[in-house]
Amino acid sequence: MDVDLNSDLAEGFGRWELSDDEALLRIVTSANVACGYHAGDATVIRRACEQAAEHGVVVGAQVSYRDLAGFGRRFIDVPPAELTNDVVYQIGALAAFARVAGTEVGYVKPHGALYNAIVHHAEQAAAVVAAIRSYDPSLAVLGLPGSQWLEQAEQAGLRVFREAFADRAYTPEGTLVPRREPGAVLHDPDEIAERCLKLAAGEPIEAIDGTEIKIEADSICVHGDSPGAVAIAEAVRNRLVAAGVELAPFARRGA
Amino acid sequence: MDVDLNSDLAEGFGRWELSDDEALLRIVTSANVACGYHAGDATVIRRACEQAAEHGVVVGAQVSYRDLAGFGRRFIDVPPAELTNDVVYQIGALAAFARVAGTEVGYVKPHGALYNAIVHHAEQAAAVVAAIRSYDPSLAVLGLPGSQWLEQAEQAGLRVFREAFADRAYTPEGTLVPRREPGAVLHDPDEIAERCLKLAAGEPIEAIDGTEIKIEADSICVHGDSPGAVAIAEAVRNRLVAAGVELAPFARRGA
Amino acid sequence: MDVDLNSDLAEGFGRWELSDDEALLRIVTSANVACGYHAGDATVIRRACEQAAEHGVVVGAQVSYRDLAGFGRRFIDVPPAELTNDVVYQIGALAAFARVAGTEVGYVKPHGALYNAIVHHAEQAAAVVAAIRSYDPSLAVLGLPGSQWLEQAEQAGLRVFREAFADRAYTPEGTLVPRREPGAVLHDPDEIAERCLKLAAGEPIEAIDGTEIKIEADSICVHGDSPGAVAIAEAVRNRLVAAGVELAPFARRGA
Amino acid sequence: MDVDLNSDLAEGFGRWELSDDEALLRIVTSANVACGYHAGDATVIRRACEQAAEHGVVVGAQVSYRDLAGFGRRFIDVPPAELTNDVVYQIGALAAFARVAGTEVGYVKPHGALYNAIVHHAEQAAAVVAAIRSYDPSLAVLGLPGSQWLEQAEQAGLRVFREAFADRAYTPEGTLVPRREPGAVLHDPDEIAERCLKLAAGEPIEAIDGTEIKIEADSICVHGDSPGAVAIAEAVRNRLVAAGVELAPFARRGA
Repeated sequence: MDVDLNSDLAEGFGRWELSDDEALLRIVTSANVACGYHAGDATVIRRACEQAAEHGVVVGAQVSYRDLAGFGRRFIDVPPAELTNDVVYQIGALAAFARVAGTEVGYVKPHGALYNAIVHHAEQAAAVVAAIRSYDPSLAVLGLPGSQWLEQAEQAGLRVFREAFADRAYTPEGTLVPRREPGAVLHDPDEIAERCLKLAAGEPIEAIDGTEIKIEADSICVHGDSPGAVAIAEAVRNRLVAAGVELAPFARRGA
Repeated sequence: MDVDLNSDLAEGFGRWELSDDEALLRIVTSANVACGYHAGDATVIRRACEQAAEHGVVVGAQVSYRDLAGFGRRFIDVPPAELTNDVVYQIGALAAFARVAGTEVGYVKPHGALYNAIVHHAEQAAAVVAAIRSYDPSLAVLGLPGSQWLEQAEQAGLRVFREAFADRAYTPEGTLVPRREPGAVLHDPDEIAERCLKLAAGEPIEAIDGTEIKIEADSICVHGDSPGAVAIAEAVRNRLVAAGVELAPFARRGA
Repeated sequence: MDVDLNSDLAEGFGRWELSDDEALLRIVTSANVACGYHAGDATVIRRACEQAAEHGVVVGAQVSYRDLAGFGRRFIDVPPAELTNDVVYQIGALAAFARVAGTEVGYVKPHGALYNAIVHHAEQAAAVVAAIRSYDPSLAVLGLPGSQWLEQAEQAGLRVFREAFADRAYTPEGTLVPRREPGAVLHDPDEIAERCLKLAAGEPIEAIDGTEIKIEADSICVHGDSPGAVAIAEAVRNRLVAAGVELAPFARRGA
Repeated sequence: MDVDLNSDLAEGFGRWELSDDEALLRIVTSANVACGYHAGDATVIRRACEQAAEHGVVVGAQVSYRDLAGFGRRFIDVPPAELTNDVVYQIGALAAFARVAGTEVGYVKPHGALYNAIVHHAEQAAAVVAAIRSYDPSLAVLGLPGSQWLEQAEQAGLRVFREAFADRAYTPEGTLVPRREPGAVLHDPDEIAERCLKLAAGEPIEAIDGTEIKIEADSICVHGDSPGAVAIAEAVRNRLVAAGVELAPFARRGA
């Protein structure tokens, strides 16, 4: 019984700090490192890569639309060929710091509005897949089960992994309850940790209406953009370890 | 008798075009490809890399200060550690497109104000050298003979190459006549071509005061940011070829 | 019988030039000046304002999504409140240069993807209208007849003006033929000039299927981003002047 | 006996927050509002202007080099004419939000590396002065006593005001002790508040070597980029008020 914990890192920019990267790198096994398009200047990226390498955490490329002002959270109707190139650019920039840190980029997880868009947007999903295939088809990809992104990646022969969210409520159909709805985000560390244990064990979890659903997850996403978020991530890790779950980076499976 | 011709490419950005990359790639043997900090979006970089690969032209990283608004032409007092990271970022981004195009980054040539700064600015020169050493010490570097940049690169064990400028007047001491002075820039294609032939042959050229000086050059820089500039670059190439000079990328020497 | 000619200006950025502003300012009566979000650095904006003031051309704010890399041509799903603020920011920046040049901002014409979005996107249209109302409700607005943008502006009590396009084919319903369809863009200067004369005279023009349609236009948009475009704009102006049409800035009507 | 307290506001950008603007606007009488070049997106600027207007705090333009990645803390060798235009652009953008908030821009205080550069850099100082003269010569300016910036502003007929720093040690000559030297920054709220009272009363303060010096100050700069900084600013205000010092915006004097 093993599972991966992933989180977003290197999301500062210049004078501005955001995620507590040092704390997170003691918790997670996979680090979604910002690549400079929505966050992440060269110095914060380098530090994240070096610390990830020290802690044996796998570095992933958290690629985004080019949108510092919007933190990558606004859909942009980028023509697919340009999106492919923007993704290649970001992976390459990150790969340089991974190399300098003595490690390498293990996977790609799109960020924010791009993550959401390619659940359904077939052309943009194809554009991201094309970027990875052309750059390095041995890279793993991480995403939402059932998304265009994962389906197309699988068809393209990429190594595909599914993620669940530690602190998000699910519908009976197994999709995320939209953030604007009541109960969409869980806040109790114990409840979240318990649910993560079930996800890791492959057991059903409770949907928002009380029914039981099965979520297949190779990795669980935890957050680190507030002190409370880090505390929850820590609770999740401690609960998993206490239950004997092995924490192991998904990207190393079958590699 | 062989020499290299280098030129700046991929200096458009989004809607804006600048260099005539297709024409230049039929002329030069080394392409200084912009990396996104002073110019060069992902799409224009990719195209330049693919076309360079087709023509057997070596791709070099034209790294810059982060300054799109100033086209990298304004000195920025970046702390050295940040400059190192900015250079790593740019080389990595370019390396991804070189890889996708089936080639690789062969050398680094700083751009604009950074090029000028590290002639004398020891800390920033050291910062660029540190970036290359940490990323890939087998990369060649191109620069002005006698510059801090080349001296420190040599001491660091990097493969160092010197460049001359096809269309610039030299002082009797072998330095460039500043652009603001009369006669600083040559305009006659035949005169420029003839001078390049002498540079390639290792013969003395005439300084601005009429004295003869010897310039050691592994590569000659030609420009391509206007139709006239491309015509001059073409004249240079034709003259060299007609005289039996072999055009060969400097970065492949001793590699 | 009078009409206004408008064109996009100040669309360079730093080292990159685009529109031939000097030529256009001898042709048009209203200048859509870029405000720095899709194009236009402070120096190119200032020059455009000063030259517009010299030629008696009215300065308009060509506001855009924040997207230099995409030249404002990509839809961005900006939350309306942020879009309102982005528009205020741009009008204010331009207003400073208009003031320095001894003139003022007379109208607002959104650019590129924003122009297209607010034909139908009610929330973003409302956001742009809100920006103008809060900043200066006496500003005129220019746009596509029948668009959400003009309808909401009118309801908000703004001074609304409609534009036609000199070089675009129209459907029998009076909408623009999409650029990707054959015949969407006209190229013959004489044909274009003749059509503009009809638009100015309030006479019907020919739709793409040969039927006659009536387009109400307070202003005709001409382009200046290529030597050919400038020549066409000049032909339009000459034809109008020769026919006795008075060229007068729309924004001064009823002001 | 009256004095002004000024602080930097609106220094967030998009997702990133920095200064606690709400707390500061209850403390200071003059708000140096970032204008988008080193920090400050349109939404954070608008909010700062609206809240400043509510609290009767005067809005000042905190103009900067164009450098989001460096937070305006790196000297940039911008040609003076471009710097003038960059400053006009920023003042104009801010003026729009001041207008929307029912107030206006009252003064200009350069930020970071620009602030430091124009203590000595005569050309850049002149460029900033030229921007203000051309945009609105009735604007007040705030800066370091003895700086090129204030001297040139005075010669140009601008309304000049001098600032002191609440938490910085001074040399016996009345200049700031460089930050890298021991004792350069004061940390004790009571000591800082006491010193501010002396500054407000026009009494001598103690220099770093124990000698007494007289600092002429129309305004005292307090910081707000950490909870501790806000607490110090509050202590300063409370001490001044308790001692009967009237807090009044400098920019309204003689206006």
